[in-house]
Amino acid sequence: MRKKLIAEFIGTYFLVFAGTGAIVINEITKSLTHIGIALTFGLVVMALIYTFGHISGAHFNPAVSIGFVVNGDISVLECLFYIISQLLGALSASATLYALFGNIAKLGSTLPKFSWQQSFVLELILTFALMMVIFGSAVHGKAVKSFAGIAIGATVGLEAMFAGPICGASMNPARSIAPALVSRHLDHLWIYIVATILGAVLASLVYKTIHE
Amino acid sequence: MRKKLIAEFIGTYFLVFAGTGAIVINEITKSLTHIGIALTFGLVVMALIYTFGHISGAHFNPAVSIGFVVNGDISVLECLFYIISQLLGALSASATLYALFGNIAKLGSTLPKFSWQQSFVLELILTFALMMVIFGSAVHGKAVKSFAGIAIGATVGLEAMFAGPICGASMNPARSIAPALVSRHLDHLWIYIVATILGAVLASLVYKTIHE
Amino acid sequence: MRKKLIAEFIGTYFLVFAGTGAIVINEITKSLTHIGIALTFGLVVMALIYTFGHISGAHFNPAVSIGFVVNGDISVLECLFYIISQLLGALSASATLYALFGNIAKLGSTLPKFSWQQSFVLELILTFALMMVIFGSAVHGKAVKSFAGIAIGATVGLEAMFAGPICGASMNPARSIAPALVSRHLDHLWIYIVATILGAVLASLVYKTIHE
Amino acid sequence: MRKKLIAEFIGTYFLVFAGTGAIVINEITKSLTHIGIALTFGLVVMALIYTFGHISGAHFNPAVSIGFVVNGDISVLECLFYIISQLLGALSASATLYALFGNIAKLGSTLPKFSWQQSFVLELILTFALMMVIFGSAVHGKAVKSFAGIAIGATVGLEAMFAGPICGASMNPARSIAPALVSRHLDHLWIYIVATILGAVLASLVYKTIHE
Repeated sequence: MRKKLIAEFIGTYFLVFAGTGAIVINEITKSLTHIGIALTFGLVVMALIYTFGHISGAHFNPAVSIGFVVNGDISVLECLFYIISQLLGALSASATLYALFGNIAKLGSTLPKFSWQQSFVLELILTFALMMVIFGSAVHGKAVKSFAGIAIGATVGLEAMFAGPICGASMNPARSIAPALVSRHLDHLWIYIVATILGAVLASLVYKTIHE
Repeated sequence: MRKKLIAEFIGTYFLVFAGTGAIVINEITKSLTHIGIALTFGLVVMALIYTFGHISGAHFNPAVSIGFVVNGDISVLECLFYIISQLLGALSASATLYALFGNIAKLGSTLPKFSWQQSFVLELILTFALMMVIFGSAVHGKAVKSFAGIAIGATVGLEAMFAGPICGASMNPARSIAPALVSRHLDHLWIYIVATILGAVLASLVYKTIHE
Repeated sequence: MRKKLIAEFIGTYFLVFAGTGAIVINEITKSLTHIGIALTFGLVVMALIYTFGHISGAHFNPAVSIGFVVNGDISVLECLFYIISQLLGALSASATLYALFGNIAKLGSTLPKFSWQQSFVLELILTFALMMVIFGSAVHGKAVKSFAGIAIGATVGLEAMFAGPICGASMNPARSIAPALVSRHLDHLWIYIVATILGAVLASLVYKTIHE
Repeated sequence: MRKKLIAEFIGTYFLVFAGTGAIVINEITKSLTHIGIALTFGLVVMALIYTFGHISGAHFNPAVSIGFVVNGDISVLECLFYIISQLLGALSASATLYALFGNIAKLGSTLPKFSWQQSFVLELILTFALMMVIFGSAVHGKAVKSFAGIAIGATVGLEAMFAGPICGASMNPARSIAPALVSRHLDHLWIYIVATILGAVLASLVYKTIHE
């Protein structure tokens, strides 16, 4: 368990450090563009799955951990410890970015570009799709599980690519909570907690209906 | 069969939601550029193959399903049910985009930039190549089938990249029919139905000649 | 043998159609940028290796076929037939692009941006590196051969990315001869024949020295 | 041992030639943009791992070799020979770029954009993360080791993408020493030697604590 929590801490740290760091550094240097930011998110998730997947399962995301509880893959207690590790990792990453660059670009916080309803629905669909890809590629009995890292990283990357400009494409409460808390911009934060968890839970229920 | 049709529905839904959603969101925010749209199409196909390939075969494309009928991989009846699922999934995706963003960028409809003949020939070649890659990487007896998702996703991505600016790079009747119907722009839609199916059928015939 | 030659024909056709097509279509629409062109070249090679690698070896490149002769992997006669198939495939692709788009962007011909000496050296190094990657990832006894398509596609993509703006990053006589002949711009064509073959042969000799 | 050192020489040569060559050629032609440079670094590392991983372990990086010494994977003597090969390969690459293009863009030297402290911390974190990915994906007993090339290449690519604009994202003393020496800009070079080695050693110590 100790190893798993350290893996979740380091993994979520690096996911948030690289992903929201890309947003911060693009704000300063204008050199990554939206494409570079989206690719950073997708590639870091893929790399981390091949690094820590065999240790902790490579969640790095409270919504994903909750989805696994609903599907019966991990216990509620394990989920709780995972979420604490993930939040601590994410907060440490945002704190590092704050120390290095100051309070720039709200440290990569997610915010709705237009109405909150639009972003709520988008985040719900995005997280639903992410969780379905996780179940289908990494959990399903017949899946070629070694390719799950590629499938899941691709999903995070493409969702950041197409939906990021509207809703921020969080899909991950830890990734949204940390920069919001450290940069002190809590507006609309609830969307990125509620919609993502709803999306993951919904995916678990649909997956259960289909596969069992 | 029920599981297969649900997989085709969800898969085609997410393919059309992400791919044509990228076109719509780029129209609104100008942040993805053509490169981001093409990458979205390629990555979503790759992710979905690793998610649903072992359940339904991961067609998400009526032309591909018809190609498999010609090659004798699935029955005509199965093909019909697949196509209905795919169309329903695609229509639901276009309807979701319409509800979220309104009737913008014709919801990502495919249209010829210049003459219809040029786009017809292009779509035929693109779908022929896609179907050849599918047969060669996912069906052929000696193929390293676990890599088919990468090969097929790459093909969709690169064809969207180089040919998208001329013909839209549909390669998929469902992907073209849904935004056309929901946005009510049926001009030239027939190209994306006839040319893609012709390309896939032609590839099946050529593949049969070579490999059997 | 017939199957192999058809695979080399179709593969080289699609490699040249997509790759040089990207250059032509970028000239017309300005939407791919250099990045989109380089990605197209890399992705098409990767997809084709997983499609035809188990049939013909997926050369699609006379320099590579000659490199395999020097290393003793194929016979001189087989190499000759391969090269004829590759050239016919490439010429058909350039002819298709000519029919579709007219004589635009010299149909994607490769030309030195500055001195021919600079491009000669670059093409030699690029093809040397490509051939070393092929030997190391697809031929070497201990290689994880199923990943060769990814390694070789990545090499073509990255070489097109960084060296394309100077020398065109051909690495492939067929890819240079076809657009040059069909668009009737034979200037400097010899570089892309001589330097690429030299690079591949050199790599074969170095590989032989190390591994045997 | 001879084969290993040749592999490290050729690999580091091509890594530095392609990666810093991308910076030089982008300075001349403005066509790659930062995204093209970052992708070049990631793809070349990935391709080289599948080419030379089974021969030398595919370090191409003195900090990584030192990290392996700390973890007990290679001996101090082997590490020394590796570093010499890597430096010779890197220097040859920078000399080739100098001969081809002249003393442009400091031959791709890494330099802090703002304070040296900021870049020092960044390089330390980047190399720590890279070394953790290497241990987790390529060394750990339960890792799916065949995917290590993808995970490590992705890490180099994404770190170059998000951190390159601030610190150059070296993560590799050889990659920084060679262009600095050949272009004669030794300012701040020590950061890229000290911080990267510190990061790799720290990762080895953390990895040891967790996994043993």
